[in-house]
Amino acid sequence: MSYRAPVADMLLTLSHAGGLAAALDEGLYGDLDADTMAAIVEQAGAFATDVIGPLNRVGDREGATFSGGEVATATGWRDAYRRWAEAGWNGVLADEAFGGQGLPTAVWAATSELWAQGSMAFGLCPLLSQGAIECLERHGSPELQHRYLPRLVSGEWTATMNLTEPQAGSDLALLRSKAERAGDGSYRIRGQKIFITYGEHDMAENILHLVLARLPDAPEGTRGVSLFLVPKRHVADDGALGARNDVVCAGIEEKLGIHGSPTCTMVFGEGDGAVGYLIGEEHRGLACMFTMMNNARLAVGLQGVAVAERATQGALAYAHDRRQGRAGDVSPSPIVVHPDVRRMLLTMRALTSAARGICHRAAVEIDRSRFSPDDAARKAAHERASLLIPIAKAFGTDVGCAAASLGVQVYGGMGYVEETGAAQHLRDARIAPIYEGTNGVQAIDLVTRKLPQSKGETVSGLITDLRRTVQSVADLGAPALGATGARLDEAIDALDRATSWVASPGRTQQEILAGAAPYLRLFGLAAGGAALAEDALAALRRNEAGGALAKPVALARFFAENLVIEAGGLAEAVAGGAGSLVGESVDAALAL
Amino acid sequence: MSYRAPVADMLLTLSHAGGLAAALDEGLYGDLDADTMAAIVEQAGAFATDVIGPLNRVGDREGATFSGGEVATATGWRDAYRRWAEAGWNGVLADEAFGGQGLPTAVWAATSELWAQGSMAFGLCPLLSQGAIECLERHGSPELQHRYLPRLVSGEWTATMNLTEPQAGSDLALLRSKAERAGDGSYRIRGQKIFITYGEHDMAENILHLVLARLPDAPEGTRGVSLFLVPKRHVADDGALGARNDVVCAGIEEKLGIHGSPTCTMVFGEGDGAVGYLIGEEHRGLACMFTMMNNARLAVGLQGVAVAERATQGALAYAHDRRQGRAGDVSPSPIVVHPDVRRMLLTMRALTSAARGICHRAAVEIDRSRFSPDDAARKAAHERASLLIPIAKAFGTDVGCAAASLGVQVYGGMGYVEETGAAQHLRDARIAPIYEGTNGVQAIDLVTRKLPQSKGETVSGLITDLRRTVQSVADLGAPALGATGARLDEAIDALDRATSWVASPGRTQQEILAGAAPYLRLFGLAAGGAALAEDALAALRRNEAGGALAKPVALARFFAENLVIEAGGLAEAVAGGAGSLVGESVDAALAL
Repeated sequence: MSYRAPVADMLLTLSHAGGLAAALDEGLYGDLDADTMAAIVEQAGAFATDVIGPLNRVGDREGATFSGGEVATATGWRDAYRRWAEAGWNGVLADEAFGGQGLPTAVWAATSELWAQGSMAFGLCPLLSQGAIECLERHGSPELQHRYLPRLVSGEWTATMNLTEPQAGSDLALLRSKAERAGDGSYRIRGQKIFITYGEHDMAENILHLVLARLPDAPEGTRGVSLFLVPKRHVADDGALGARNDVVCAGIEEKLGIHGSPTCTMVFGEGDGAVGYLIGEEHRGLACMFTMMNNARLAVGLQGVAVAERATQGALAYAHDRRQGRAGDVSPSPIVVHPDVRRMLLTMRALTSAARGICHRAAVEIDRSRFSPDDAARKAAHERASLLIPIAKAFGTDVGCAAASLGVQVYGGMGYVEETGAAQHLRDARIAPIYEGTNGVQAIDLVTRKLPQSKGETVSGLITDLRRTVQSVADLGAPALGATGARLDEAIDALDRATSWVASPGRTQQEILAGAAPYLRLFGLAAGGAALAEDALAALRRNEAGGALAKPVALARFFAENLVIEAGGLAEAVAGGAGSLVGESVDAALAL
Repeated sequence: MSYRAPVADMLLTLSHAGGLAAALDEGLYGDLDADTMAAIVEQAGAFATDVIGPLNRVGDREGATFSGGEVATATGWRDAYRRWAEAGWNGVLADEAFGGQGLPTAVWAATSELWAQGSMAFGLCPLLSQGAIECLERHGSPELQHRYLPRLVSGEWTATMNLTEPQAGSDLALLRSKAERAGDGSYRIRGQKIFITYGEHDMAENILHLVLARLPDAPEGTRGVSLFLVPKRHVADDGALGARNDVVCAGIEEKLGIHGSPTCTMVFGEGDGAVGYLIGEEHRGLACMFTMMNNARLAVGLQGVAVAERATQGALAYAHDRRQGRAGDVSPSPIVVHPDVRRMLLTMRALTSAARGICHRAAVEIDRSRFSPDDAARKAAHERASLLIPIAKAFGTDVGCAAASLGVQVYGGMGYVEETGAAQHLRDARIAPIYEGTNGVQAIDLVTRKLPQSKGETVSGLITDLRRTVQSVADLGAPALGATGARLDEAIDALDRATSWVASPGRTQQEILAGAAPYLRLFGLAAGGAALAEDALAALRRNEAGGALAKPVALARFFAENLVIEAGGLAEAVAGGAGSLVGESVDAALAL
């Protein structure tokens, strides 16, 4: 079955679960109206469907190939990237001053998901470029901006993030790459970086490496890390591309999935040292990284959503086609009629939409933090977005894996054969809970940094909003929603209890961290359920006006009655699980 | 890190969670004592560790290769299989009359898990042979038994099960393969079968294909299917191997995992027809298949456990070695000290042991159904085993996938790189919820066939047993067990409620099937929690006698406080979820 961008579903979620409609009503987006945004998403959907979608399989089969320091992408990828860049898609979010379109984060989030739906491995390349664009817009000197941003924004050049080293993954304090001042204002960078996405490839004529490294007089730990721009090829004052810089790709990884995306080992400064240019201030590199973290994590959450969407489309088509057993009048029946298969498909669809709703909500809050005329509103929106980001990233990527695995199951034996493509989704999705901060790191971020924001008012404000949604469900009293209101109400009670437990004075760090993962999951279920309910309420209101009974109602109800029901148990695990992680017998169980 | 068979853990679970100790006490195993059984499992563990374990990776990398109708297994596999067969391991369960060792199912279950720990793809071959041995022992004519069983039992020959056809997977009523009476008592078989595990290979000189096909005058549906033995090479009266039969391998599948195991398309009777010999009666082929179903499903559940075990060993070793961040005195700390990582590792360990406990319990009940001197006890044990089998299969294989996925997460980025082997476990494990009856089919079997056994007395008897375990936990009142008793008690209440709901008069088939999957999961959590508690109780009693505080206590507590807590929600989904699977808006959500 061929993939088709689900533009109508996405726009519904953006408007209601995401809150775009309300934001438009309050005038947040100025002259930009809903129709224009919808038209942009439509166009992106068409590009994803027609051009990127067909690349997914060839990217998996051929993969990126390494030879003599060069990396070739799969057949058709180079041409598709050129067309994509020429259409201006790389500049959606970028500043108009550098050739970008300056569109809202909400629109960028939708287009980002679409590229990943088409091919997660393909969409990764622009994702890295976008991070570098933001970083340079915010922290680059005018000279750096002038020289590098226009062609990075246009997509003629791409960018990378060079953080990880063999001994330093989640823990950047362990970085060893070195930088030296060259005397002319530039720096010389030396070191080895691993897991560098699109560190080398043939889709663009230059690659800008953003590299974390330490200066000789740097303080220890993460406060001594600086950020440098290291171009693959030097750029002359007139913009002409010059000689190769002292940076080479030493090889690419053989990975479980996203084969189309080269994951490179990059060696800087084996010769005279790679020439690098400081971004921001010395020793303040991590602060620059934090700038782009929200968008990057949001986009990775949306990668999970995107793979879930594509896996669901495939499984649904198969379930309508494949006939086994009997349920109802026709024998053999298409397996979509069997309760077990319906449960799997509804789980996939509902998880996908719920996670998408959380991501869209975060995107609109980011826009509010950018565009609101009111200082306090901007700050509150920034905190709200920051609270939602670890949930969007972790819940979204967990959903990607869960939906992809269910997709394999719906296909049965055919799902285990690579030919059908169901297995590729599972292989591709599996990286997303790991990179851009593991989901464990997201959970820690949520409980240790995000819950304490504004003395807990950020989280309590969000919970109040969730309760408002539940109240609307109760007020409407639609029979089609079944027990949605009751189950969501219980879930939000559970979230409230768990939040209070985490925030109680006297909790040890150990206790809080022990419950972080189930707490994040609980938050995702409650917020995801409310997101689906918002979509369903909008659909029901439209239905009262004469429309057909719409699918968001089914998804909200299914999610509440079958998945949200985990919430009470998760709250118990948050508050009661810490004791089971420590002690003599636990050490024995975890001994080698 | 190299794999090591966890023989002590397995023997503990077999004795307590599995109930082997009690069965020995009641004299079920006659002269065979615990020490002898333990010695056999020890030897099998050594073979799995030393010989099979190292084959796992080469099997994945090289895979089985197809060329001109022949299939070559990976480097070293042929020799290892020969050594394995010569050591007598293929005959563990087989009748001594045919050269087998006639050992209990409990011992066979343990050895089967060990082969799959060593390499799931390797262990599959003997699993298929074992099914054929059982089938021939039970349903084969003396002539067939005499001609084929000795060399099948010795492992000189292997066997296959030929059920699936392109249009007939879970639904065997759709089979089209044809059989004709040849006039000399033999038959001619024609048709194509897919997904035939080890349908062709180079490890044995003959392969016995067990093939389901229809006679010309067969009734429609599954009551018209007959079972035939179709040898790859003819066998003369004196036992000499003759010419090739009319059966060929037309190709092998490219699969997500278990690359070492060739999955073949088999074509029967392209020439004069493949010569086949009837097993059992005409049109009664499915009854013959049912004979071997319990053991086969148990063994597949144990494959899930086995991959979970191996994934856990790898992740645990990595977590002791890899240093990131700081928790406690040492910085950077081995990641095993971080609460998030501990939670993942304990989840892996606890799920593995819980699922193993359920499988072992089923194995001992099968032994009771074979060896008990009392008719009623044999019948009750048979029903008890039949009740546990779908749970053992589905819960065990789900655990395999969950643990393998967590294993990748513990490794972080390194887990996504094929080099570490963590990804292979995830790829291998993913088939087990699909084959030997999908886990959806297991859930349907549980609620529609197993719950009604003896008017519900089988299930209520098992629930009473689970309550007895909880009572023992309460009686002991060990602080080290935390809230284990309370959480298990709630879970068994939830199981009880859900069971009553399913069994209530007036439930429609649709309602029952809608809740089947969460019901099975709930059963797995309750029974798995009780299994771990039995192991923990045994360990605590030993501890009172002066032993070290043992890991089963940690696992029972962790499982109860962090995983069993899902039970209440699952009971709600069983009883409340049916409405969300049907209706106009659900159809809209599942439309193409």
